[in-house]
Amino acid sequence: MRKNILIIPGDGIGQEVTTWGKQVLEAIALKYNHEFAFDEAIMGHTAIEATGNPLPDETLEKARVSDAILFGAIGHAKYDNDPSAKVRPEQGLLKIRKELGLYANLRPILLFDELLDASSLKPEVLRGTDILFFRELTGDVYFGEKKRNEDNTFASDLMNYHRYEVERIARKAFDAARTRNKKLCSVDKANVLETSRLWREVVQELAQEYSDVETEHMFIDNAAMQLVKNPKKFDVVLTANLFGDILTDEASQIAGSMGMLASASIGDGTGFFEPIHGSAHDIAGQNKANPLASILSAALMLDIAFGLQEEAKTVTQAVADTLKAGWRTGDIANAETAKDKILGTNEMGVKVLE
Amino acid sequence: MRKNILIIPGDGIGQEVTTWGKQVLEAIALKYNHEFAFDEAIMGHTAIEATGNPLPDETLEKARVSDAILFGAIGHAKYDNDPSAKVRPEQGLLKIRKELGLYANLRPILLFDELLDASSLKPEVLRGTDILFFRELTGDVYFGEKKRNEDNTFASDLMNYHRYEVERIARKAFDAARTRNKKLCSVDKANVLETSRLWREVVQELAQEYSDVETEHMFIDNAAMQLVKNPKKFDVVLTANLFGDILTDEASQIAGSMGMLASASIGDGTGFFEPIHGSAHDIAGQNKANPLASILSAALMLDIAFGLQEEAKTVTQAVADTLKAGWRTGDIANAETAKDKILGTNEMGVKVLE
Ligand SMILES: CC(C)[C@H](C(=O)O)[C@@H](O)C(=O)O
Ligand SMILES: CC(C)[C@H](C(=O)O)[C@@H](O)C(=O)O
Repeated sequence: MRKNILIIPGDGIGQEVTTWGKQVLEAIALKYNHEFAFDEAIMGHTAIEATGNPLPDETLEKARVSDAILFGAIGHAKYDNDPSAKVRPEQGLLKIRKELGLYANLRPILLFDELLDASSLKPEVLRGTDILFFRELTGDVYFGEKKRNEDNTFASDLMNYHRYEVERIARKAFDAARTRNKKLCSVDKANVLETSRLWREVVQELAQEYSDVETEHMFIDNAAMQLVKNPKKFDVVLTANLFGDILTDEASQIAGSMGMLASASIGDGTGFFEPIHGSAHDIAGQNKANPLASILSAALMLDIAFGLQEEAKTVTQAVADTLKAGWRTGDIANAETAKDKILGTNEMGVKVLE
Repeated sequence: MRKNILIIPGDGIGQEVTTWGKQVLEAIALKYNHEFAFDEAIMGHTAIEATGNPLPDETLEKARVSDAILFGAIGHAKYDNDPSAKVRPEQGLLKIRKELGLYANLRPILLFDELLDASSLKPEVLRGTDILFFRELTGDVYFGEKKRNEDNTFASDLMNYHRYEVERIARKAFDAARTRNKKLCSVDKANVLETSRLWREVVQELAQEYSDVETEHMFIDNAAMQLVKNPKKFDVVLTANLFGDILTDEASQIAGSMGMLASASIGDGTGFFEPIHGSAHDIAGQNKANPLASILSAALMLDIAFGLQEEAKTVTQAVADTLKAGWRTGDIANAETAKDKILGTNEMGVKVLE
């Protein structure tokens, strides 16, 4: 198979971890006789520094013509502390999601047995958890009109959804539920929000079509609670952009660490694969970041973008084997982990490659 | 002391648990020689059934003239499953919050040592946790303009904040931090939302005034994660209406159960005290609900509305003693709890009274 892959390292630890996602893809190409051609592009703070634009046209062009994109992370403390900054790294990520029509963000919560103890949740609460989140990614309050009045006494963001936006992601989630445990939980705040009531109506309608899937509706506050109380009860979780952002970060604690979770953004065009963690500038450049989320993002790419299930399994298995052998990065180590089993980003990447 | 207290049981288990909050207030009046006069009013589904209005004028009038309100819960599955219903129980609660100017919702996450094992989080993660949430309660996407187009293909809710709304609750939170561990964490989504950027600006300005308080800003996705990962790190948490709704329900798992958490809504007028749990129609009328959140809401009333610190402590201590003696309702029992120590709502209420 011949594929063009665009690497966008982005900001902070994005640079360090993406190297490993890429090297794993190269190793797979070698092993299975594929031809993966790589190109690279800039985005975020890195792109603002270089061009003044968080998503340069050149990056967008390269993205459009590639077969899949491996992305790192975005963001910089400089902007976080300056709420009045007009140009911000995150605009790059939001714009590329919108431009490529990446409306469905899949976030599997994959639990490696070896990491049961790395979580703050009790092992018996975690064991057997397997959740696949479908987060809507190009609508909601993220993209609605933003306003600020001139004297800075008022600000607003429009939360909004079109019926077709809810329907297309709901279909993807229902389809996925069919291939899994046939349970779908749609999360909203329909007791308060009009947007959520439309969301619920659409999901209720589709539920009739997918009558073999057991459909449940849950309020976001309750879902945030149930996810900690009893994560096992979830199979496919379908939710809007903002609620999905919150719930999936929370759910990262099920997998032991943000450093373990990969995501796939798909829709109309080129698929986009990225860790759910951020740019973590506090540990950037220190060879401390966990490269597994980027490596698992590469596995998602092989699976979802290229349909290479066996290759994807090989990568996931390599990660599992590395964990089984006791190797850990700092974020997934626990008090009992032997000091000499705690590795840096690069050493961990090498272990997986081996 | 002479006080007029309005009881609004509301819907579902609200009825059962509020009886116990009231009885505890009566017991305190007797013990400490206060005169508490009680009145009762309807709200929510109960009020819709009786009058067609989730917040009848009579209830609002009674609320305005009382010195404090003890509320139960609101909501009914009937409306949850019917997203198109125009009249909804929750409108009653939202309207009374707005009408009474209850802009600050205080939610203390109080951890009883006896319940360390009732949580899905590891005891060592929990031990020592003591968080006070300040949730803004009369603004945000809860009260912004809602729209639905005629052919039901589009819906929107306006998320918005005025500077003065952020400032008044932030002041309350900073003041509280001064009396506690002098740490304040303000939660927003300033990397995406204009509302959050205004929020962050205002909090940054106030932080200079409260330079003795260590102020931190955190994105909501990160906060939802940190709350599970390391709850101990938080002292006072300040946040907007929607984010506060989500975070405090999530945080209920720190306290072992939603059935343990009380809240105080304060602002311009009469204070409003309620459990954070909902109407739980699935267990309503079965003598299964945990009355402790209502009893602890009564304690908050004594403390915050009436300044009766000693009386409030007596109530909290009675709850602690009951737990120490091993008594549990179903929601806070664990696998090791002896069957004969698991009590119904009424039996648990009696134990606390004793
Ligand atoms: C960086 C930020 C804009 C982004 C989001 O909120 O979508 C991130 O948190 C994510 O989840 O991908
Ligand atoms: C019932 C609902 C409208 C309410 C809210 O979202 O504010 C509840 O969840 C709460 O937290 O008090």
